[in-house]
Amino acid sequence: MAEETAEAAARVAEQARELQDAAAALMSRARAEEEALRRRAAALAGELGRLRKAAAAAAGHADREKVEEDLDRAACLMSDGDIASIVPSKAHGTFLKVLLGPVNLRARKEVQLKVKEEYNSYRDRTAVVFLGFPMILLFLRTWLWNGCFPALPVQLYQAWLLFLYTTLALRENILRVNGSDIRPWWVSHHYCAMLMALVSLTWEIKGQPDCARKQRGVELFLCWAVMQGFAMMLQNRYQRQRLYTRIALGKAKRMDVVWGETAGVEGQLLLLCPVLFLLQVFEGYVGFLLLRTAHRGIIPEWQVVVCGILLIAMAIGNFANTVDTLMVKSRFKAKMKKSKSKRDLAACTSPTGSSLTNSAAGA
Amino acid sequence: MAEETAEAAARVAEQARELQDAAAALMSRARAEEEALRRRAAALAGELGRLRKAAAAAAGHADREKVEEDLDRAACLMSDGDIASIVPSKAHGTFLKVLLGPVNLRARKEVQLKVKEEYNSYRDRTAVVFLGFPMILLFLRTWLWNGCFPALPVQLYQAWLLFLYTTLALRENILRVNGSDIRPWWVSHHYCAMLMALVSLTWEIKGQPDCARKQRGVELFLCWAVMQGFAMMLQNRYQRQRLYTRIALGKAKRMDVVWGETAGVEGQLLLLCPVLFLLQVFEGYVGFLLLRTAHRGIIPEWQVVVCGILLIAMAIGNFANTVDTLMVKSRFKAKMKKSKSKRDLAACTSPTGSSLTNSAAGA
Repeated sequence: MAEETAEAAARVAEQARELQDAAAALMSRARAEEEALRRRAAALAGELGRLRKAAAAAAGHADREKVEEDLDRAACLMSDGDIASIVPSKAHGTFLKVLLGPVNLRARKEVQLKVKEEYNSYRDRTAVVFLGFPMILLFLRTWLWNGCFPALPVQLYQAWLLFLYTTLALRENILRVNGSDIRPWWVSHHYCAMLMALVSLTWEIKGQPDCARKQRGVELFLCWAVMQGFAMMLQNRYQRQRLYTRIALGKAKRMDVVWGETAGVEGQLLLLCPVLFLLQVFEGYVGFLLLRTAHRGIIPEWQVVVCGILLIAMAIGNFANTVDTLMVKSRFKAKMKKSKSKRDLAACTSPTGSSLTNSAAGA
Repeated sequence: MAEETAEAAARVAEQARELQDAAAALMSRARAEEEALRRRAAALAGELGRLRKAAAAAAGHADREKVEEDLDRAACLMSDGDIASIVPSKAHGTFLKVLLGPVNLRARKEVQLKVKEEYNSYRDRTAVVFLGFPMILLFLRTWLWNGCFPALPVQLYQAWLLFLYTTLALRENILRVNGSDIRPWWVSHHYCAMLMALVSLTWEIKGQPDCARKQRGVELFLCWAVMQGFAMMLQNRYQRQRLYTRIALGKAKRMDVVWGETAGVEGQLLLLCPVLFLLQVFEGYVGFLLLRTAHRGIIPEWQVVVCGILLIAMAIGNFANTVDTLMVKSRFKAKMKKSKSKRDLAACTSPTGSSLTNSAAGA
């Protein structure tokens, strides 16, 4: 028995050695092949750029449309196909580099949709808290706390907001590394929101007497949060339907993806857009009210001023980006109608990727 | 000219298609081969576990040492060799899952050392701020601010601490996923520190009159931070020398790594350990002082109580883990001396990996 064990142990050690050699060989082989493909991809990308310029110079030529279609198709394959997961990824950006270090965050094609789906379900789960928490606070103030917020529950909510916006910023940066076309503004917007949550944490919540006056800033902040949570819920509905269409169609034929989804949720957009604009106006208004209370000396703390400025900056940025997204969207649709081969073009040059989904007053 | 362009564009589109096919083929082939290796590894791991039990049952047998050596060698190859980067990684843990979503953070072997090195250089860079910032605050209080901290600079430092501990917790979790043997406690310790920084942010910094009394908590907090920054500097020196030895030896022969480094920094440890224990005692004492000021009603805020409890908990945990690390270290050294084939064993069962390096009073 003991001898058998000794033999078996020697055999296991030998097998482990073989397995190690096999793994090392596989990895070095895969690395060499990837390197070769990477060189081909780089050469092709250079050629593509050269031809784009040539095509632009030959404006008005009869062949031009055909040439551009070919180039679009090539660019699309390179940016959206399997080759994209081999080519060195888009720069990670300072945010990820500082928070995570030099780790590779590029996921495999089959994981990317999962990452996106998890991001959406995370937004779903958090939207409930985002909306419910401040509503409960505002409700309890009237019915339980005699018009005066205690500090702890408000600070708990503010800490949670800081946590939420940090996770959203992290996850969106990771989505960007993996090829999502979220506009940089929506990520910057979350940096602003992180800063605001942090500033609001240092904001002293004064008690009696004269609570209503002293806590006006906190009250405005919570109103903004309620509105924000509402926007997030609405966006999520829109976003989820888009992703489901995307997955369903993606299974059938990856190239159909974006075209199909744009058609599917047209009705939802008609509801979403006015609500978004309304929320953005309200966000700017809350910022203005905060600045006014600070100016009138009711709450002279610097936190109120900073929060006010941040809210106004976010409202302006959100508005500009929503308008721009809608314009690009309609230009794209016009191009789609003109183009004869809708499907190929729709596959990856669509500007509708994830842009509008984050464009609520800033959820 | 235009016709040439049209031809070239068609050619580019064709080449992109070929490249896409090649990439897809490479990826599916690599995936299949990896899957096969993964199955072999799983079978081997099962066999290894079975033999470990058999060897333990056959205690006292003459062959036992030889058997254990074989099993250690196999286990070492599987946990530290190239095969480890193919086998499904250690669970990511809730912290990473919540903050980053379901993305794969396992780096390739050659990237792992770089991640570790970047982590160390990050600690180096931040230790200067960690130590310098509170020293400047304490200095300015006496020489410029007439014994009374203004709120903003202190809150800036607290916000920075929150940021620092978040990044450290993230990076350490990523190191763990990549096979680092940081003890779970040091990561938990950073969660505690994150919580403390967050709580301290909500802590109102009262002004005149009677500043010295009301700001006693803040003062203690900053003293703790100075001490903490000092500990961090010391650890970093130790850590860096260990890593350099590791890399230098690793280039020659990977298996020599840990044994070499343990020998190299023995002298440093003699300095590090007493300092660590001293700092841990001081950390607990600061916690006790905070609780006392709260108990005596000088600063009745809940933040003071929570910070006090957290500091004492961290001091106890740090102490217990440092002692345990030292004990495992000395047991390991005794085993080394007994064992005839030091090198193989030293390769990956060393408990000295990253354990002590994070065991300062909690940097």
